[in-house]
Amino acid sequence: MVDDSTATVAHSLRAWVATASPGSRLPSNRELVARFGVSPVTVQKAFRRLTAGGLIESRPGVGTFVRSRPAVRPADYGWQTAALRAPHTRPPAVSAPMRSADPEAIALHSGYPARDLLPERLLRNAFARVGRSEAGWTRSSVAGDPDLRSWFAGELAAVTAAGTTPPAARDVVVLPGTQSGLSSVFRALVGSGHPVLVESPTYWGALLAAAQAGVDVVPVRGGPDGPDPADLARAFTETGARAFYAQPAFANPTGARWSAERADQVLDVVRAHDAFLVEDDWAHDFAVEGEVSPVAARDDAGHVVYLRSLTKSVSPAVRVGALVARGPARERILTDRLAESVYVSAFLQAVALEVVTAPGWRTHLRTMRGNLRARRDLMVEELDRRVPSAHLALVPAGGLNLWARLPEGTDVQRLVRECEHEGVVVAAGDEWFPAEPSGPFVRVNYSGPEPERFGEGLAILGRVLARQEG
Amino acid sequence: MVDDSTATVAHSLRAWVATASPGSRLPSNRELVARFGVSPVTVQKAFRRLTAGGLIESRPGVGTFVRSRPAVRPADYGWQTAALRAPHTRPPAVSAPMRSADPEAIALHSGYPARDLLPERLLRNAFARVGRSEAGWTRSSVAGDPDLRSWFAGELAAVTAAGTTPPAARDVVVLPGTQSGLSSVFRALVGSGHPVLVESPTYWGALLAAAQAGVDVVPVRGGPDGPDPADLARAFTETGARAFYAQPAFANPTGARWSAERADQVLDVVRAHDAFLVEDDWAHDFAVEGEVSPVAARDDAGHVVYLRSLTKSVSPAVRVGALVARGPARERILTDRLAESVYVSAFLQAVALEVVTAPGWRTHLRTMRGNLRARRDLMVEELDRRVPSAHLALVPAGGLNLWARLPEGTDVQRLVRECEHEGVVVAAGDEWFPAEPSGPFVRVNYSGPEPERFGEGLAILGRVLARQEG
Repeated sequence: MVDDSTATVAHSLRAWVATASPGSRLPSNRELVARFGVSPVTVQKAFRRLTAGGLIESRPGVGTFVRSRPAVRPADYGWQTAALRAPHTRPPAVSAPMRSADPEAIALHSGYPARDLLPERLLRNAFARVGRSEAGWTRSSVAGDPDLRSWFAGELAAVTAAGTTPPAARDVVVLPGTQSGLSSVFRALVGSGHPVLVESPTYWGALLAAAQAGVDVVPVRGGPDGPDPADLARAFTETGARAFYAQPAFANPTGARWSAERADQVLDVVRAHDAFLVEDDWAHDFAVEGEVSPVAARDDAGHVVYLRSLTKSVSPAVRVGALVARGPARERILTDRLAESVYVSAFLQAVALEVVTAPGWRTHLRTMRGNLRARRDLMVEELDRRVPSAHLALVPAGGLNLWARLPEGTDVQRLVRECEHEGVVVAAGDEWFPAEPSGPFVRVNYSGPEPERFGEGLAILGRVLARQEG
Repeated sequence: MVDDSTATVAHSLRAWVATASPGSRLPSNRELVARFGVSPVTVQKAFRRLTAGGLIESRPGVGTFVRSRPAVRPADYGWQTAALRAPHTRPPAVSAPMRSADPEAIALHSGYPARDLLPERLLRNAFARVGRSEAGWTRSSVAGDPDLRSWFAGELAAVTAAGTTPPAARDVVVLPGTQSGLSSVFRALVGSGHPVLVESPTYWGALLAAAQAGVDVVPVRGGPDGPDPADLARAFTETGARAFYAQPAFANPTGARWSAERADQVLDVVRAHDAFLVEDDWAHDFAVEGEVSPVAARDDAGHVVYLRSLTKSVSPAVRVGALVARGPARERILTDRLAESVYVSAFLQAVALEVVTAPGWRTHLRTMRGNLRARRDLMVEELDRRVPSAHLALVPAGGLNLWARLPEGTDVQRLVRECEHEGVVVAAGDEWFPAEPSGPFVRVNYSGPEPERFGEGLAILGRVLARQEG
């Protein structure tokens, strides 16, 4: 990971060792330098990794050998099945947006922006500066670094309406990614066996976190402008739920965005039921038309628990997000975070703060949004041209995805498998539905690598789909 | 955090702004440069932070001013109390070992080693190298980086007995700190409402994670050589528990260490009950007499779930640990990790791997262990001299703590409060007991900063204790 060539050499050696007999001698450092075209230091580093893994051993002056392992017999873990009891949920092991595709494939499934959309220069500077600072030695508090909390609070405070108390640094809890925040919110504010309302479809990670917490998910129909307030009110009344999870700006997967009026209506319903709105502002930095105006900025009585991520906009390796909550809700969440992970790496917090307070951050965001808009437009155009039977309910004004409805009767799972076989990876819509899918959907992400191959990828999707229809 | 002087200036400005009227003009950059003895760039950076936090605003060419905030009214979060229902557990908000003490105080309470015990040079090199590598852009898989997993597996494989299948990289799950692993293990392998056996006393973080998971904690009496196997067998039979959580090497807080014979006996009991031993090898790198020989290395049928941390031995900012489990247990845990945090920062994983595979790591460990031994010996000697009525059941052969029993009738909470008032922070033993404390104990950590003040700190403890007795 540190050094690609070391990883490559280590990987090849590991494959060789796996099939070699114990005691076999490895090729010499000199031979491997020639074979891989790398430096002797790289070969030595690869040797060290295999040695650390117990796969090989060096005998100085003699050579490096495959370690002899004691004979192993197949293990029987059958007893575990009874000891573990039936799982209370059966979520999928790895969801489509998290899958690593064949590196040659056209990847339209991922949930993460391609590298050229990330702030490369700012991040390199931040790593270098923070690496020389004290942050690499520091233990953070449970709630996180005060300056970073202040930054997150300031982002919301800047758009808070006059007369509404803006959030302060003390209302912020820094998270090792917002997925951890969702887990904490469902555990601490809803609790096992209690209901939570969600839009349908909605983010698969939220469904997974809810399943983990043992929370009962109650779907409410979503729409291009958000849920119907009357539907929502009925669901609160019927179920006694005290929380509604939603992504008001560029919902994943649909791209739906609530209007200001809808946000007020939803907040009224939430208030009337003494409930929480869990606002997952995942795409805050990915608006391509206008800015995101969080519902949390309209809240003055602790009804909105607000989540904001930097993982997707700063770097997938900088797992930092935050949660803003007030009142006893925040205390409950903080207790859960202490039990769950004690604190977030001070190094990553410092890197995140360094990037988002750098003078170049706003400029980067502007450029990145321009690129995202171009990619979105390209993907919409290519989808229209190459998959004419697909239907987009809306062209999202932000986010990373298009949500395409396919003709009735499409076998989406088969379609996705066949597409992958022909070299393009798309995500089947089913994963985003808490209950029955409302139709055959695929999600295509326009922030992945190689936009110049969008057309080619969608052409394959179009052909495979036509074959199924024909 | 990145730059101490920026943080200092920002902190002072924030304090000033908090008491200033909206619209007040801040001192000029030049004045602040003079006042704090820092560079103009540092002052600008501090300004940027406050601006980001919405506290001040610049008017170019005019100056920098305290922002006027809309009038705020006190918020009423009373509705939340009903919405949240009674919490299913009431753990302490912040435990003693996590508290930040007055920087002037003599800190004998912390759970983390002082900076001079950490691998400073190795870590700086690792930050610099990894910062220039691809790891800063990489998304990890749920289970973690293959090379790091291989290293963790190799550490166990190196001490696995002949005839026993050694763990492989595929059995390893990388964690953002082992606290997260405990949470996952209690959720995924025990489950809400089911019992788990623990030694008494035991690590407070495990008690907290168990409470969070809704698991019923069943205490088993510990001893200097670990729990009595007959006690343990009885507890398994009586409760139907399928898991036993323990720290076999240098248990926190007692320092107890299981002999090889005891490890075999415990493993026999665990096997006979088709149960799991959750082995928390937290102090693996902190052995000062001999090496730690994990119980997991004796396991051939997936009975031991093994946890190993690097946070305390590499750096508190490198939140990386790992869990080794086999069979369906590992699958359950991996599903929980996906729901909880998706993946661990590839950057931190790469830094951890870089440090522990560096040629200097073994040398560092040797030096650090020598220092720890000297600190332990000093603390034992000073405790004996300054607090003669305290009793140590054992001098631990590793770990970071002494566990001292005080005379019967000591009011430990009052003692700890009075000590803090006089400038020394120690941890009350109560937090480590899952039920009633078995006596008045304090835990003193010998890995904190300033060993030259151990004597002074313990002299205060001795005086306060004598006052209580007299």
